[in-house]
Amino acid sequence: MDKGFVVWITGYAGAGKTTLARTIFKELSSHHNLSNLFLLDGDEFREFLSPDLGYTPKDRLENAWRIARLSLYLATHGINVITATVSMYANVRNWLREQVENYTEIYIKVSDETLIKRDKKNLYSKLKRGEISYIPGGDVRLEEPDNPHIVIENDSTTTAELEGKAREIARMLAKNKTARQNAF
Amino acid sequence: MDKGFVVWITGYAGAGKTTLARTIFKELSSHHNLSNLFLLDGDEFREFLSPDLGYTPKDRLENAWRIARLSLYLATHGINVITATVSMYANVRNWLREQVENYTEIYIKVSDETLIKRDKKNLYSKLKRGEISYIPGGDVRLEEPDNPHIVIENDSTTTAELEGKAREIARMLAKNKTARQNAF
Repeated sequence: MDKGFVVWITGYAGAGKTTLARTIFKELSSHHNLSNLFLLDGDEFREFLSPDLGYTPKDRLENAWRIARLSLYLATHGINVITATVSMYANVRNWLREQVENYTEIYIKVSDETLIKRDKKNLYSKLKRGEISYIPGGDVRLEEPDNPHIVIENDSTTTAELEGKAREIARMLAKNKTARQNAF
Repeated sequence: MDKGFVVWITGYAGAGKTTLARTIFKELSSHHNLSNLFLLDGDEFREFLSPDLGYTPKDRLENAWRIARLSLYLATHGINVITATVSMYANVRNWLREQVENYTEIYIKVSDETLIKRDKKNLYSKLKRGEISYIPGGDVRLEEPDNPHIVIENDSTTTAELEGKAREIARMLAKNKTARQNAF
């Protein structure tokens, strides 16, 4: 069986991970007719597979490991996984690079100002009011990727531009996939 | 997106779950051209997603819940899941029946004599020598399904007969799948 790929999209809350992941998914499935696709979104993953975990540093790291292990598990069985989660830990990324045959790391980079301006989940405003703490991108930095395959600077990007990037990435993934299939 | 199905194959260690699951998988993918298939095998699942769990009653139950939650999660995203695990707990099965839209429960039933005779993993012989304990089907009974969709009595079944059953089940799943797709 042909193994699946893992696309690991990372960035702080509000960077644009979900938008990018969804557009890549849609492009792959509708335009490139790729099946065996699975979009792993951080919030939903927690609901199903980490209901026992909170948001302490320890719990966040354990959650990232679970996401990484599930991604490898699915890819081993031919499922193509696109993840959109914060999960910024060097050890987890190194493990993925080592374990996943077809691995692409995408870092969506935005300035702190952009995060605070967007703040869809009201995380940064709650932090400012002292209602919560330990918010990656707010009061703590995580281990940002130092050598991702793709970096997207998403401060002043329009939705159309981000979708353009997604189409480009989908094209690359689909091409790579076909090349691998032909090699067997 | 069309949701995936969950086929929950259960039975004690040595009943024939893996053989049945693999044959159904193979039939669906090669004969019925069904994609988005995922075979979830108990031992492999533990390796990837329950490395923290052992074999105590509490850990076995937690493991079964994780398998059930992952199955629902994948099915929600259009992946068709076939599980082959012991996981015999009424609460877990009831939850799956309630949550999964397209759920099929298969119980492979064999006598204790057959289990002891097969004993591929040497579980029952180790139990007999007192080296291990709490072996479902050995010194403990779990909650066997009381109303599975399909029961397979697998004491004197030949491999060819079991494969025949698998082909029949695959045909039913593929037909059901197509009918659902047409309904949307």
